[in-house]
Amino acid sequence: MPQGTPPQVPDDGLTTRARRNAPVLAVHTGAGKGKSTAAFGMALRAWNAGLDVAVFQFVKSAKWKVGEEAAFQRLGELHEQQGIGGAVEWHKMGAGWSWTRKQGSDVDHAAAAADGWAEIARRLAGQRHDFYVLDEFTYPLRWGWIDVDTVVDALLGRPGCQHVVITGRDAPPRLVEAADLVTEMAKVKHPMDVGRKGQKGIEW
Amino acid sequence: MPQGTPPQVPDDGLTTRARRNAPVLAVHTGAGKGKSTAAFGMALRAWNAGLDVAVFQFVKSAKWKVGEEAAFQRLGELHEQQGIGGAVEWHKMGAGWSWTRKQGSDVDHAAAAADGWAEIARRLAGQRHDFYVLDEFTYPLRWGWIDVDTVVDALLGRPGCQHVVITGRDAPPRLVEAADLVTEMAKVKHPMDVGRKGQKGIEW
Repeated sequence: MPQGTPPQVPDDGLTTRARRNAPVLAVHTGAGKGKSTAAFGMALRAWNAGLDVAVFQFVKSAKWKVGEEAAFQRLGELHEQQGIGGAVEWHKMGAGWSWTRKQGSDVDHAAAAADGWAEIARRLAGQRHDFYVLDEFTYPLRWGWIDVDTVVDALLGRPGCQHVVITGRDAPPRLVEAADLVTEMAKVKHPMDVGRKGQKGIEW
Repeated sequence: MPQGTPPQVPDDGLTTRARRNAPVLAVHTGAGKGKSTAAFGMALRAWNAGLDVAVFQFVKSAKWKVGEEAAFQRLGELHEQQGIGGAVEWHKMGAGWSWTRKQGSDVDHAAAAADGWAEIARRLAGQRHDFYVLDEFTYPLRWGWIDVDTVVDALLGRPGCQHVVITGRDAPPRLVEAADLVTEMAKVKHPMDVGRKGQKGIEW
């Protein structure tokens, strides 16, 4: 809810209007479900507000496709064809993916992730999009494939009003510290624990 | 991820295929962000899989409209006009709302919520939709406006393969017990704590 009085008003010399235009860095972490799903839900809201949305999935395989990707392709088409909502781009950075080499070549996962981050950093510097989802981005950070300090510096120093949502378990402390909004999704109960299977429309 | 071996295989006499078609009851609770957003993200995935989606928001005012509602209206139009995705319905049960009286009349909140639940129970019994979001539904349960046992019995006894996602803080223990999937969204850090304001495309 946008209404209401905040618990404290910061002594930052900004007007309420300026604070409304402050870029948000959000992190969804924890072992529970909903980290990516909530990020895509936020992207849906951003799309509806006319923001230019870009999703970067740091996934195991670029061949894997979640239902949200197909849905956002439709939303992107609505924007292109009818001017409804915002523009949408969806990129996957896993095995078989590279910004610089042909799709499907046998690139190393770590190099692909580093390459992906370099492209995101360029786009942030160039204010290419309004709303970024860096899905499962904590993993290459935890594995040392991408330097956390470099990422945090680039995020904190990003120009303009670019919102960024990062998902994945075990978010590095420096990233949590830098973020404006951090939610931990904790698993209370999961059907696969009792042998249930994933289902179309639910799990993918 | 739908692949992989579950930690245990239940001795329920069901095939993997049957378990894949088992209806899911999910609860998103906790004081953090993302409960509703993740539910709408799940609904997006369900829509893409061609499921018939219905959202029931138990909100303070039926006049309040989140960005997701507008986006899902577009998705519903895509279904109606081009046969893409699933059908979408979006209902709000707050002050000024009633299934049985004219919109805008001065109905009591508790009666409106009870009335809303009665309609949902009818739809569940009639297998009207494939995927239900009962947004902020824990509040009328906590306030005693709707009987928890009646709700749990109706949910556990619902016929066919109807998925239900319920959101809101302080989910009643009986509901948590009955659910297949429970995620607690815990607040780690929120920008409004330090006086930031809600923003278009982010908060609504």
